[in-house]
Amino acid sequence: MELINKMLDGDKRACARLISIVENDEKESEKLIKTIYKHTGKAHIIGITGPPGAGKSTLTDKYVKLLRKSDYKVGVIAVDPTSPYTGGAILGDRIRMNDLALDPGVFIRSMGTRGYLGGLAKATRNAVKILDASGCDYIIIETVGVGQSEVDIVKAADTVVLVMVPGLGDDIQSIKAGIMEIGDLFVVNKSDIFGAQRTATEINMMLDMSQDMDRRPPVVMVTANQNKNIEQMEQEIQKHYQYLVDNGLLEERRKKNIKRELLELVEEELKKLVIRETENNGELDSMTESLFNKETDPFTLRDVLLSRIK
Amino acid sequence: MELINKMLDGDKRACARLISIVENDEKESEKLIKTIYKHTGKAHIIGITGPPGAGKSTLTDKYVKLLRKSDYKVGVIAVDPTSPYTGGAILGDRIRMNDLALDPGVFIRSMGTRGYLGGLAKATRNAVKILDASGCDYIIIETVGVGQSEVDIVKAADTVVLVMVPGLGDDIQSIKAGIMEIGDLFVVNKSDIFGAQRTATEINMMLDMSQDMDRRPPVVMVTANQNKNIEQMEQEIQKHYQYLVDNGLLEERRKKNIKRELLELVEEELKKLVIRETENNGELDSMTESLFNKETDPFTLRDVLLSRIK
Repeated sequence: MELINKMLDGDKRACARLISIVENDEKESEKLIKTIYKHTGKAHIIGITGPPGAGKSTLTDKYVKLLRKSDYKVGVIAVDPTSPYTGGAILGDRIRMNDLALDPGVFIRSMGTRGYLGGLAKATRNAVKILDASGCDYIIIETVGVGQSEVDIVKAADTVVLVMVPGLGDDIQSIKAGIMEIGDLFVVNKSDIFGAQRTATEINMMLDMSQDMDRRPPVVMVTANQNKNIEQMEQEIQKHYQYLVDNGLLEERRKKNIKRELLELVEEELKKLVIRETENNGELDSMTESLFNKETDPFTLRDVLLSRIK
Repeated sequence: MELINKMLDGDKRACARLISIVENDEKESEKLIKTIYKHTGKAHIIGITGPPGAGKSTLTDKYVKLLRKSDYKVGVIAVDPTSPYTGGAILGDRIRMNDLALDPGVFIRSMGTRGYLGGLAKATRNAVKILDASGCDYIIIETVGVGQSEVDIVKAADTVVLVMVPGLGDDIQSIKAGIMEIGDLFVVNKSDIFGAQRTATEINMMLDMSQDMDRRPPVVMVTANQNKNIEQMEQEIQKHYQYLVDNGLLEERRKKNIKRELLELVEEELKKLVIRETENNGELDSMTESLFNKETDPFTLRDVLLSRIK
């Protein structure tokens, strides 16, 4: 409880220790979230995602520094791929953001993509709740966004910034297409290099072609490593937030996320139930055996298991 | 039934129509799989995956042509990202493989990454079953493998080929690390370009560092667009299959996949149950409302829902 009170007062070390609980101890994590849930919902949560090599870390770094000029408290959750060979998050990012980490108004945490009970999306969501309760004005979730799981993580944000970069080739274009629809704001980074204008034009064309959009996302060209146009990006992020508020969409969006979270929690428990139900008496193994021998089919056995559980 | 019999006789058009059922009609799909399940389990299923730009389609193309020289029947499921703007799979791949598609011993199908009832992994799995039952000797599942969902799809294979390529930058390296452990065989494509040897060396080093491997995956350098070293890749694929058979691991691996499939089918139905249970009476909405207003917390409501279902 003392740890929680410290966290609620904005203590960074308390935040760090509570996030470790969220990562490693499912039971304690539940207790914790139950206690602090009422303190959440105040921060503006921003997702920053895009293909590998788009310079998301540098962009996040500069953006946080800009927010700090107005003395905002900022939390950053950097979701990194984890190597099965090292078992930890990539060291690079942590080092890169070292000067930020020393700032008492900034909290930075790297999270890997495996090994969390209940999955990374859940762990990230709960880490965000802790930072939210601790009084962060802004929380940035940075992910290497290329697959569905990364998209799922970033969906929990109020504002999603999709970072693109010139010259990643045709194949990247097609991946972009798949995650394009989650962007509230498009940023072309490295806009000093050849092809940047063309990339921006392509994104604009894609966005113009899209029919069913209530709001047409803007495209901003920045050069993060030169700290160029970060203010413009910030203005567009603010505009988007204001747009959500003015149209009752912030509430709508957050409710959608709340609903999804609740259903996922129920599903997670049901999954455990299925496994317990079938593994106890070795039934799952014998079912697998008869499927392997083609004596039955998976849908028939599914129905057997379902009638058992209900 | 006539369609099924035609498919079992190896008719390509029947296969195509049955895969469309698997994609679009959940109920009919179940009936179909129940009927044909006993005819599955004969094909060698090969997953080919890797980052965007690695030349997977070209490699698949050349590999299929090599297999055709021995008159093997080959099925290819190419899992493509789908653009929300076009709603279809990328046209490029279909065109590229056009000459293959005319070969009566080859069946090719593109599948997008969204819009399938029960998810893409399920649709892919069932499409593979159809091709398996239709008498394909080899079935290749080709995916742009960067996220968790793509990894999940490729896990259903007996042999997973991870395609790498030189010069994709540091950030790609870290993604590679995350999916590295699923590779039974590593292929460095475009090995005629600068840096290929270095990429191969890096992969070899990573593999050597890894401790808990029963079998150390080989690394093969190929140049798919010049049809170079594809035979060597094929030999390694055969060696891996033989290794699985000799050590009883093929059965073990397939049983693991069967078990996973069965559990996923049960989970899918339980999910539907939760949604039905809560949406009917508007309860989910009122729960969401009280969560949004911080009157309670998600874990408490989860337990309420769980006690209802059980």
